[in-house]
Amino acid sequence: MKISKSPISGKSYSIPNTLDDSDEIKKFILNHSDKKIIVVQGLGFVGAVMALVCANSITEEYAVIGVDLPNENTYWKIRSINDGIFPLIADDPKISKFFDNAVANGNFLATYDSLAYQYADVIIVDINLDVQKISDAKDRLKDFDVNLEGFKSAIQSIGKNCREDVLVLVETTVPPGTCDQVVKPIIEEELVKRELPIKNYQLGHSYERVMPGPQYINSIREFPRVYAGISEASADAVEKFLKTIIDISKCEITRLEHTNATEMAKVLENSYRAMNIAFAVEWSRFAEEAGVDLYAMVNAIRARPTHANLMYPGIGVGGYCLTKDPLLASWARKSHFGAKSDLEMSINGVSINDQMPKFAFSRLVEVFGDVSGKKVVFLGVSYRGDVGDTRFTPVESLVKMVRETGAKIVLHDPFVRYWEEQKCNVESDLNGVLDSTIDLIIISAGHSKYKLESTIDKLMSLSPALIYDTIGLFNKEQLLILQSKHKVSVLGRGDLK
Amino acid sequence: MKISKSPISGKSYSIPNTLDDSDEIKKFILNHSDKKIIVVQGLGFVGAVMALVCANSITEEYAVIGVDLPNENTYWKIRSINDGIFPLIADDPKISKFFDNAVANGNFLATYDSLAYQYADVIIVDINLDVQKISDAKDRLKDFDVNLEGFKSAIQSIGKNCREDVLVLVETTVPPGTCDQVVKPIIEEELVKRELPIKNYQLGHSYERVMPGPQYINSIREFPRVYAGISEASADAVEKFLKTIIDISKCEITRLEHTNATEMAKVLENSYRAMNIAFAVEWSRFAEEAGVDLYAMVNAIRARPTHANLMYPGIGVGGYCLTKDPLLASWARKSHFGAKSDLEMSINGVSINDQMPKFAFSRLVEVFGDVSGKKVVFLGVSYRGDVGDTRFTPVESLVKMVRETGAKIVLHDPFVRYWEEQKCNVESDLNGVLDSTIDLIIISAGHSKYKLESTIDKLMSLSPALIYDTIGLFNKEQLLILQSKHKVSVLGRGDLK
Repeated sequence: MKISKSPISGKSYSIPNTLDDSDEIKKFILNHSDKKIIVVQGLGFVGAVMALVCANSITEEYAVIGVDLPNENTYWKIRSINDGIFPLIADDPKISKFFDNAVANGNFLATYDSLAYQYADVIIVDINLDVQKISDAKDRLKDFDVNLEGFKSAIQSIGKNCREDVLVLVETTVPPGTCDQVVKPIIEEELVKRELPIKNYQLGHSYERVMPGPQYINSIREFPRVYAGISEASADAVEKFLKTIIDISKCEITRLEHTNATEMAKVLENSYRAMNIAFAVEWSRFAEEAGVDLYAMVNAIRARPTHANLMYPGIGVGGYCLTKDPLLASWARKSHFGAKSDLEMSINGVSINDQMPKFAFSRLVEVFGDVSGKKVVFLGVSYRGDVGDTRFTPVESLVKMVRETGAKIVLHDPFVRYWEEQKCNVESDLNGVLDSTIDLIIISAGHSKYKLESTIDKLMSLSPALIYDTIGLFNKEQLLILQSKHKVSVLGRGDLK
Repeated sequence: MKISKSPISGKSYSIPNTLDDSDEIKKFILNHSDKKIIVVQGLGFVGAVMALVCANSITEEYAVIGVDLPNENTYWKIRSINDGIFPLIADDPKISKFFDNAVANGNFLATYDSLAYQYADVIIVDINLDVQKISDAKDRLKDFDVNLEGFKSAIQSIGKNCREDVLVLVETTVPPGTCDQVVKPIIEEELVKRELPIKNYQLGHSYERVMPGPQYINSIREFPRVYAGISEASADAVEKFLKTIIDISKCEITRLEHTNATEMAKVLENSYRAMNIAFAVEWSRFAEEAGVDLYAMVNAIRARPTHANLMYPGIGVGGYCLTKDPLLASWARKSHFGAKSDLEMSINGVSINDQMPKFAFSRLVEVFGDVSGKKVVFLGVSYRGDVGDTRFTPVESLVKMVRETGAKIVLHDPFVRYWEEQKCNVESDLNGVLDSTIDLIIISAGHSKYKLESTIDKLMSLSPALIYDTIGLFNKEQLLILQSKHKVSVLGRGDLK
């Protein structure tokens, strides 16, 4: 019997051998015969919270079923939800409020059983679609591939079960062209096999802009949306649905002409950000070489509204989106639209970003020398400030390199108790971590807690310690004080005069 | 005897064989013995207007001398200023107001004679510093070089003449490291040769953000500034001076730690913009291939403040700065700071931008077929909307390619009467240009005049005509109407459904 363990509660769940959840689903449906049924496919960082938003919709009451796979990595989420424990740690108080509401109303069920699709008025696709990267020893991107098989079989399970009048709303970030060239043919083929008409279903795409963190719920409920349908009727159906869950008094929803356009807008949006970060990388190195402070320059330049999106230096790009979306786009350009050219700037941007942790490590060695046997504390392991998301965090690569030198590693993060990718625990008591036995402190994520005066005072009082600031935590005055006692280096900042 | 002809008044001036303007300079100095003297080196798009701003300073009255070279391209500017004609056509009413003031006060003289530097309290360096590019047949950048000789000799002429207590303020966009590694040694060497102390002069860098157009004067006088000095005293001197000409109640001035930092900030600022444009290029092609509208996508994405600098599609990058500044930066990284790496993303951005007119031309041929023998009207030749600046305009390359097909070319631009680089006149009467004999209209610059309802009505009434919109002039509704009668193509917009 296989086990799926919750990193949140620590509880282990046995995955059943016989996969039949029909009794639970039928009971749930019966209890909510007066409501429309929404099924969310995928219970990850997007789907789980999207399900909450639907279960707490604005203008209409829904009964929501979340579906995920019964495997070791995801089965615990299903059981956890049904046990009344939300499967994400979040800094947004609305998460627990919305989940408690749903539990009280009994309008949120989780299951692995694709029977659920049979009852759905709306099916929302929130599954992953990954890119396989091949990198060289310097972490430069050499090649990549997009494998749609997992995505296709998920869509197929919808097509095999869905009602003929269902609305399928894809939120997954897909290679442009996917709804039109992949999802539509699969669903129609399955409907035809079941001898059902293909004129009654609706299909649309509306990409999420979910941002884990203190505004997690509002990043869905009160954040501008872009949507499209494969037909006017589909677009109308998507619009009507979105208006029931999104507070349009607080944000706009924008229709584009085609699902190709919304799919492209999503990867364009993320490629733009990834490319801006890659741009900052090159200039960080240049600033270090020229002995000047890139932070000060960026501040001076950002005063111009035309330059407000210029990025600060940093340790690298993480998260599920920016590390792959430019590649999805470039792949689609050739595979779905027959172009001969790649999106060179976008691919190059990903490659530059992928190399950042190596840059950060080589500067560490350059400035602090050999750290083998030293006690090294990392402050922050998630990829972004005030968020407990470690997916593709650049800190992971830096931690590995420092560990490989033979250093003793201590990890701290207020938002991550268990680091799933590294299979290790993370300290959450900052005072317990910051003591005089530390040789080197690496500030590796921009959590607000680290920016508190009390933390900075504590860091400044620790002596003797080396400090490697990869996120620009300290201002110039603090640095000058620190440098009078410690060896301090800041990524993207040349040696102070 | 050599002649220098004004493209503004059409008047020809003979360049004197004996270059001695000392009488005029001495008379001017005598008339203004109560004032501080500012000498502006270079009377181009920046220097000429900077001189006006100094002659109309805020807290202190200056006497201003503009210096340029006595050659065919620039001598007319000197004579023109002294004849009471400002050497630029500008859309900003403040330009003529400020010039009229200076003429009335008699506090603005122009000369070619470097004797002027002897009297200067402040010397402002506003000369050009060019990059030599080598491109392949596809306009891809193959190589480039920066030749500092002209710049060095201009600095030398300052060093040979300046007072030992002068403030030299470099505004020219230079490769980072130039003030410290080039300007400073030259000036000090010349002072030593003249047996003067080197401890009394001040040297700083403060880059301009001059934007020709309706806010020309305010882009100096009321626009945020960044500055630095080679020492604390130099930075103080620069600050004190800037506060006399810039209205600090309307904008901030920011001190950076070193001239390396201000020099880098300038090229970073422009590289950021050039790279953003290059990014849009790739996605324009992708949008065209996928048959979707990049304008609509950009609008939807720009709703996010983090994405507000995302650029629209366009015909290419022009102007004096964005086409070369990323290269200055990359050159300096290796030449002044010993780095082994280029700024790859920045260089790649310039190369992509350089290819844009060729893209625009190939799409023209693809959509409209052979245009040889056709009458083709270009609306707009300058590189930017509402500006009469044709330096490195991408329209030039497109015009050449269309002309080479054997098409009959008509050029229109409300801001350019004479196209200096192409040595030809440009029509300014829009109604005279837009008639029924036109085969193809290319909208090639985003001047407000073209966006007027009356112009759009006129364009929509011309029939039969092909329209190639490279700047996104028409909205979707207008396009649908146009397309019912004409063949219309928009760069960055796929075929409308």
